[in-house]
Amino acid sequence: MKIYDIEGFPNPLRVRIALAEKGATDKVEFVPVDVMAGEHRSEAFKAKNPDATVPLLELDDGTCIAQCNAITEYLDGVFDGPSLTGTTPRERALIAMMNLRAESGLMNAVGAYFHHATPGLGPDLETWQCPEWGNKQKEVAVATMAYLDRVLAENAFLAGERFSVADITAFAGLVFADFAKVEIPQTLGNLQAWREKVAARPSVAG
Amino acid sequence: MKIYDIEGFPNPLRVRIALAEKGATDKVEFVPVDVMAGEHRSEAFKAKNPDATVPLLELDDGTCIAQCNAITEYLDGVFDGPSLTGTTPRERALIAMMNLRAESGLMNAVGAYFHHATPGLGPDLETWQCPEWGNKQKEVAVATMAYLDRVLAENAFLAGERFSVADITAFAGLVFADFAKVEIPQTLGNLQAWREKVAARPSVAG
Repeated sequence: MKIYDIEGFPNPLRVRIALAEKGATDKVEFVPVDVMAGEHRSEAFKAKNPDATVPLLELDDGTCIAQCNAITEYLDGVFDGPSLTGTTPRERALIAMMNLRAESGLMNAVGAYFHHATPGLGPDLETWQCPEWGNKQKEVAVATMAYLDRVLAENAFLAGERFSVADITAFAGLVFADFAKVEIPQTLGNLQAWREKVAARPSVAG
Repeated sequence: MKIYDIEGFPNPLRVRIALAEKGATDKVEFVPVDVMAGEHRSEAFKAKNPDATVPLLELDDGTCIAQCNAITEYLDGVFDGPSLTGTTPRERALIAMMNLRAESGLMNAVGAYFHHATPGLGPDLETWQCPEWGNKQKEVAVATMAYLDRVLAENAFLAGERFSVADITAFAGLVFADFAKVEIPQTLGNLQAWREKVAARPSVAG
């Protein structure tokens, strides 16, 4: 299978961490996409992924799977290793809920701030911006950090005592926040400690 | 188990259809939430669901599961009947991808238009609006309808030949579009035909 992505970007990072957690990084061929040149918006790429986003997973039969959560669902199902998406209905639901909160409240909120209220990827790629929306989403991101800190006061990881895809999403969201200069408030000690713990995992530290 | 929701709203509809597809509607106690009076934003409700959204699933042990996709994941896992979220990794990933496209591109885009570019639920509840963002999201919703129409030219349902949660999300998105007066272009015959087919299912038609 192939993964079309670009190294160092936050959403590709999510899938790369998931792959490493499953011990499957060497099972995949990475195909670089020149996002800064707009390759993800080319007709050739949009034929594979109409969302015009990376990462994209292409199976050997040509099936294309876009969206980090869908890709992780696939990788978690086909590779061995600890489950990232949960095994019981209750666990799967709690992980899905926390993953959605980390995604919409942090990852996507930081992304909206970056793409709408800063120069983002530059004028060639940021063809429509709404700064008012972007700035509001920065507030959402910081409020979500505070929420995650409260969750981590009572749990080792975001969806309980086990590392899951929710932790991957939130960790990548904080990487994106650093890049976009959205600071983690110093008062959020649980979030800071959790971040150091996740950063030390072999899937992240390498 | 209990579901806190309000009848006739689009996101609650998603979970109610999922429950009916599983033949499990009578396994749940519905607890009405007075959204128009802001009950979903009360401290008592936010203690159960910090997202301040309905629907919310509360299990008998007090565990609260918010977000339609997480709730559907749980219901699909604990009740018999045809799978809504898929059984193989490939099927689960394709359903997740199409569900995300239907959610972000249609349901949430219509929601953003409704809440930001129309009076929405009225001045007491719409405390911050960004009309420019809302109007752009209306364009996204109409573009997504065209995309879904292309998918349905080649598939009986959004994620292939089987009905899935992706169909539920898109169907509820179109109900919301009607309510918000975002019209389905008459040219989208595949989408219209699929909509009639879904509307005739016992889970929807009652």
